[in-house]
Amino acid sequence: MIKHKIITIKTKGNCDILDITQIIEKEVENSKVKEGICNIFVKGSTAAISTIEYEEGLLQDFKNFMDKILPKGNYEHNKTWGDGNGHSHLRSTLLKTSIQVPIINNKLSLGTWQQIVLIDFDTGPREREIVISIYS
Amino acid sequence: MIKHKIITIKTKGNCDILDITQIIEKEVENSKVKEGICNIFVKGSTAAISTIEYEEGLLQDFKNFMDKILPKGNYEHNKTWGDGNGHSHLRSTLLKTSIQVPIINNKLSLGTWQQIVLIDFDTGPREREIVISIYS
Amino acid sequence: MIKHKIITIKTKGNCDILDITQIIEKEVENSKVKEGICNIFVKGSTAAISTIEYEEGLLQDFKNFMDKILPKGNYEHNKTWGDGNGHSHLRSTLLKTSIQVPIINNKLSLGTWQQIVLIDFDTGPREREIVISIYS
Repeated sequence: MIKHKIITIKTKGNCDILDITQIIEKEVENSKVKEGICNIFVKGSTAAISTIEYEEGLLQDFKNFMDKILPKGNYEHNKTWGDGNGHSHLRSTLLKTSIQVPIINNKLSLGTWQQIVLIDFDTGPREREIVISIYS
Repeated sequence: MIKHKIITIKTKGNCDILDITQIIEKEVENSKVKEGICNIFVKGSTAAISTIEYEEGLLQDFKNFMDKILPKGNYEHNKTWGDGNGHSHLRSTLLKTSIQVPIINNKLSLGTWQQIVLIDFDTGPREREIVISIYS
Repeated sequence: MIKHKIITIKTKGNCDILDITQIIEKEVENSKVKEGICNIFVKGSTAAISTIEYEEGLLQDFKNFMDKILPKGNYEHNKTWGDGNGHSHLRSTLLKTSIQVPIINNKLSLGTWQQIVLIDFDTGPREREIVISIYS
């Protein structure tokens, strides 16, 4: 049995990294599912979902890494739409838009330093729709 | 309840990017599943599944990006088999071979510009087996 | 119905790549599930799960690639904890910590050269907890 919950999250864009672990954990608790899987999906083509140790230094390192391998710049995509977010799209395709975490005894089975994050690679503030799917 | 559908898709290789969204959407419709998850998996070690805005400029940008971080060249793997596709394997391991998309009201809950793509990184034409798994 | 099995695996760290396909395959066999999905998840923020052709040359290529795009070095994270594993965390966030493989006729539907691997990016030996979730 699968139940979805859609939530909306405001982001600042430009590789804004938001810790959404508590939001997901709360949905898992509310679901009363003891053993299951939680799928977290972000709609859109310029965002991503992954896990990271949510620590300021490391968040900066991640931003620096993205700027190194996929800097803002002259992408073919930018010529098509003129919106200057070619790098945002490529980062999203690389990182992908979902993650799956086991639910064990009504809790996400994450490591201690492993937080679930929504990353917004687009060039400005956005409202992002996250689909949290819990199944058992 | 899980139902698999295996489909075969012809690719050109060399970072050929195919929009398979309509194929998946059709399977979701046929399944009659209203609320569920769709898992899309490609068999093989030189292909990948991801999402992208399917726009010619951006597809070219993605190819350029792959050529930059993982160019064709002298890989140890090429010495083992002599088939010159070391870069194809590494790209597949990096991008991965599956994706999960929520099904809401019998439709894939994708963003407007978010298409599901099969990417073939190998060095020539191939027939790829995709497993579409729908569960509810 | 979902059943989890947690297993512990010893790693050497420093981009140690372990073929865990047989371990997963055995769990699938034991489950008696004919048609389903297997989710493989590693707890922690410095490891990853992916697929690769498990061949010595290619494993070396993967290590070289990681050293190229995310070398050991001076990361902000290292200033926070002084444990020198900033690159390990970034590699894990990039590669991610889970994968999903369809189960067809009680077998993982992998390609012939597609093995499931646990990759430990941390800087020394570790015991890793893997959650194998099988659902049907």
